[in-house]
Amino acid sequence: MRPNDPIEHLIALLARLPGLGRRSARRAVLKMLMDPHAQMLPLAEALTSAAGAVRVCESCGNLDTESPCHICRDPHRDMGLICVVEGVADLWALERAQAHAGRYHVLGGLLSALGGIGPSDLAVTPLLRKIEAGGIEEVILALPATVDGATTSHYLTDRLKPTGCAVTRLAQGVPIGGALDVLDDGTLMAAFKARRSL
Amino acid sequence: MRPNDPIEHLIALLARLPGLGRRSARRAVLKMLMDPHAQMLPLAEALTSAAGAVRVCESCGNLDTESPCHICRDPHRDMGLICVVEGVADLWALERAQAHAGRYHVLGGLLSALGGIGPSDLAVTPLLRKIEAGGIEEVILALPATVDGATTSHYLTDRLKPTGCAVTRLAQGVPIGGALDVLDDGTLMAAFKARRSL
Repeated sequence: MRPNDPIEHLIALLARLPGLGRRSARRAVLKMLMDPHAQMLPLAEALTSAAGAVRVCESCGNLDTESPCHICRDPHRDMGLICVVEGVADLWALERAQAHAGRYHVLGGLLSALGGIGPSDLAVTPLLRKIEAGGIEEVILALPATVDGATTSHYLTDRLKPTGCAVTRLAQGVPIGGALDVLDDGTLMAAFKARRSL
Repeated sequence: MRPNDPIEHLIALLARLPGLGRRSARRAVLKMLMDPHAQMLPLAEALTSAAGAVRVCESCGNLDTESPCHICRDPHRDMGLICVVEGVADLWALERAQAHAGRYHVLGGLLSALGGIGPSDLAVTPLLRKIEAGGIEEVILALPATVDGATTSHYLTDRLKPTGCAVTRLAQGVPIGGALDVLDDGTLMAAFKARRSL
């Protein structure tokens, strides 16, 4: 409404978040303004502290407060098992499902002829270096069941086969066209268990 | 997942906002973490500055950075016209529709036998004092077209009639059962124009 209005400014920033439009941003701000000290200041502090504390894991690409992340540092994880995911959202989905006992590798995207995304745009070389360093028995490709996901899986299989470690992909329990991070835990678990050799 | 994790803490706080669930809060946090300095810190600052700057208008009950608010201080507003609303969300909706040229009075709720909300829980006495101070020609009751809204309108009409000023309510263009702040501007404008004497 008015320029430099802190309420309007806050609504505009909140409305940019995925899943929130202007209307829901307005409702959220009104609700928070009912008790600013109980709701707005803790949220502001949580944002500031997360922005300052969160970094990208130098080993797997996960987002965490430490690098290497808590998964890469966990001695109880199976060090011989690496699960390759498109992004951090998929990593978090698999962790919520507790479907994977090993470590992860975040690719940072998928190969896409239309999007102009080639192997050099993804974290493929770091993955190969990890495997060359030894100790990896199996690489699980947990990529989405889309055209780009299948293309990327085929490409990675060709690159990984010569290293001698087993390459598997999630079972086709994953719905075609679906994204990993919207699946229920049971489906993710079943797909993990039925993974097939390539 | 883990205690004291700033990411989980931030997701939990965001998920409490109306319109955001855990899944969308997670997506919003992931998106912000892609570029924390461009997205998280400005939002944190906007929250802190709004929490510090916003106060309740002592005159009408609006939320603004100054009290009396910018509407109550505006010399171009019709001082003889007061629009009574249930809450600040409805005031903002009427302002967006530019349906009202006068000032507002926020009741802070509606009479509700089931909810145990009586006249003393609402800002009825301040409204009567304003009218007794003189200069008010018309009180427009812009309350929702629900049972509680109608009850409150009837009660206020009985209290306001003896003061001698005109009491009107919004035309029945407002859908029965609907809330004011989800209506389109055209309907709000039409209902304002067709208001009837009680």
